[in-house]
Amino acid sequence: MTEDADRHRDKMAKRKAVQDAEVASKTVEKGLLMVHTGAGKGKSTAAFGLALRMLGRGRRVGVVQFIKGAWSTGERPLLEAMPGLEWHSMGEGFTWETQDRERDVAACRRAWDKAMALKAEDGLGMLVLDELCIALRYHYLPLPEVIDGLMDRPPMLHVVVTGRNAPPALMEAADLVTEMLPRKHHFAAGVKAQEGIEF
Amino acid sequence: MTEDADRHRDKMAKRKAVQDAEVASKTVEKGLLMVHTGAGKGKSTAAFGLALRMLGRGRRVGVVQFIKGAWSTGERPLLEAMPGLEWHSMGEGFTWETQDRERDVAACRRAWDKAMALKAEDGLGMLVLDELCIALRYHYLPLPEVIDGLMDRPPMLHVVVTGRNAPPALMEAADLVTEMLPRKHHFAAGVKAQEGIEF
Repeated sequence: MTEDADRHRDKMAKRKAVQDAEVASKTVEKGLLMVHTGAGKGKSTAAFGLALRMLGRGRRVGVVQFIKGAWSTGERPLLEAMPGLEWHSMGEGFTWETQDRERDVAACRRAWDKAMALKAEDGLGMLVLDELCIALRYHYLPLPEVIDGLMDRPPMLHVVVTGRNAPPALMEAADLVTEMLPRKHHFAAGVKAQEGIEF
Repeated sequence: MTEDADRHRDKMAKRKAVQDAEVASKTVEKGLLMVHTGAGKGKSTAAFGLALRMLGRGRRVGVVQFIKGAWSTGERPLLEAMPGLEWHSMGEGFTWETQDRERDVAACRRAWDKAMALKAEDGLGMLVLDELCIALRYHYLPLPEVIDGLMDRPPMLHVVVTGRNAPPALMEAADLVTEMLPRKHHFAAGVKAQEGIEF
């Protein structure tokens, strides 16, 4: 038993040395371009979680929603009530709801202009561009313009882009790409969207 | 142009019909067992995002942290200040920090007891068990006991379990399993952990 405890301590001491060396080797500080993509849950939810974390550090956060608009989620009023958060829902709903491509394109253009105005604001710590990948997938916005606009930002500004089917060139430009993979999903078992979970 | 617009409208009208039928086919309401696993970012962040969503719906949320303890993240004080949230950091840090298996086991046992006490509380909408997968991976808690304890809960209580290397039997029992996959990570490019992002 004591031998086991000793072995564990030795193993963990070695692990800590590796861990400490790892941490020490990372020295760069920069505003990250982060992409949350994939068919799984948690892309926007993790982005709003990051917004909350940044607000908790006393920094300002801007949120622009490119597609969802009318669909209010539970966290929105709580986040909007927080000092330092600017929330702009510029979308008009899913593409199959509007059924009007020109209207979708115009809404995404307004959203993009808002995002570009926000990034220029002094002291913004994070910009969340929710469902921007959807706007790109349907070619509602030109990809090169978007990538140029994201790369040309204040050096310490973090940006989170969410949505399925992130374009390869956007992932290429990003510092972090996380794919949310649905290994198992309750919708497949007939469970409906529920308050506090999906919205 | 008008023909294009017509085609788009037709396509989206069909898509909406499929979508509506999909939504109508899902009728079950239940408290979900959700697992966020994988080596990517966003497991805990999405769980706290869900907690915020549930709080926004006026429901109570309990959070138990099994491993992290001393390491305070930016969102914690904001969440703790919200009415309806009960936060318990029961961990004593990463296993390679404590280097003491018995102490880790005891801390995880206290955390589990707290989780089981919380689930019995009236009106709890969600229970977040942060890094429980880590406790299971190191066999700090017996897996069958944990699965039994999670399955035996009020029918509308949602549970979110986070952490790498979720055990297969836990994923089997879950309603939702999302794997966060690191397609690209800034640590590999020498970027350090930054305030408002990693903590």
